[in-house]
Amino acid sequence: MDTKRIVFGGSGGQGVITAAIILAEAAAIHEGLNAVQTQSYGPEARGGATRSDVVISEEPIRYPKVIHPHFLVCLTQEAYNKFSNLIRPGGLLLADTHTVKQVRKVDARQVALGMYDAVMEQIGKPVVFNLCVLGAFIGLTRVVQAESIVKVLETRMPADFLEINKKALQLGLQLAAASPK
Amino acid sequence: MDTKRIVFGGSGGQGVITAAIILAEAAAIHEGLNAVQTQSYGPEARGGATRSDVVISEEPIRYPKVIHPHFLVCLTQEAYNKFSNLIRPGGLLLADTHTVKQVRKVDARQVALGMYDAVMEQIGKPVVFNLCVLGAFIGLTRVVQAESIVKVLETRMPADFLEINKKALQLGLQLAAASPK
Repeated sequence: MDTKRIVFGGSGGQGVITAAIILAEAAAIHEGLNAVQTQSYGPEARGGATRSDVVISEEPIRYPKVIHPHFLVCLTQEAYNKFSNLIRPGGLLLADTHTVKQVRKVDARQVALGMYDAVMEQIGKPVVFNLCVLGAFIGLTRVVQAESIVKVLETRMPADFLEINKKALQLGLQLAAASPK
Repeated sequence: MDTKRIVFGGSGGQGVITAAIILAEAAAIHEGLNAVQTQSYGPEARGGATRSDVVISEEPIRYPKVIHPHFLVCLTQEAYNKFSNLIRPGGLLLADTHTVKQVRKVDARQVALGMYDAVMEQIGKPVVFNLCVLGAFIGLTRVVQAESIVKVLETRMPADFLEINKKALQLGLQLAAASPK
């Protein structure tokens, strides 16, 4: 696998950082890859914006931050407006249709999925939105296997919470599978 | 404030990453500083070791990883053995007496506190060990105010869990205040 540079952008409370950490742990602990996960907090943190960077590679990772992501996830309009021009040509941009209303043309595959709406309709707990996003993300990008994500979840949470997180992950995978190719 | 480079070392499940994120958010959101928080997962992640780096500065932060920390927290013997020789001369090394049994001479102030034992005796919930560590850490280093940590906690958890986390934070502050100068 070539090195993959990924940015998750959203706002506090959406579980963006947790999703990034779970992805990095899945890659490193269960797939034998190297992973680095970073968040930077500058003045923008006061506005509630959250960005987390993940680099996954078979090689040792020298520079942990992401300038131009191969894969970009935008969970707020603010994140979309700020980061969408950073994507690498030919990359993939995943946005949520409920939280990102206005998209522009980018030199990348752009997939807008109703992840938030599906979570609210089918699970009813916004707290697992981040796992649905992670499911859609790995369904589209194949960066790690779903089983590796589940293994990380199993070590991190009690049984009842695990169940709805796994359900949200599956929901995301289904949305990705049904998206236009 | 000069730039502070901090390493938290421990094992999965001790809440090391959460503590680092809370510290970075407290500095950035409530004290107007810049902060970067990173974790790297390499082959050592398979062994359960966890390391999280935090850089806090008044200036923009160019390099997010820590080579030689001013402040080092070691919550397992493995973390101690691996990281204690990295500390900057004149820095501060905080270790837990329950989880780190063997210490060596380092060119830094070394403080071993019974944080785990105090949490188990006075609160009885190992899940808040990380907040006790964070309390002791800020008590010793004054990197951020306790109030800033509390503000972050208030946005992150439900009321009942908040209470025992605040109690653990206070316990850590008390242990730091009572430690030999």
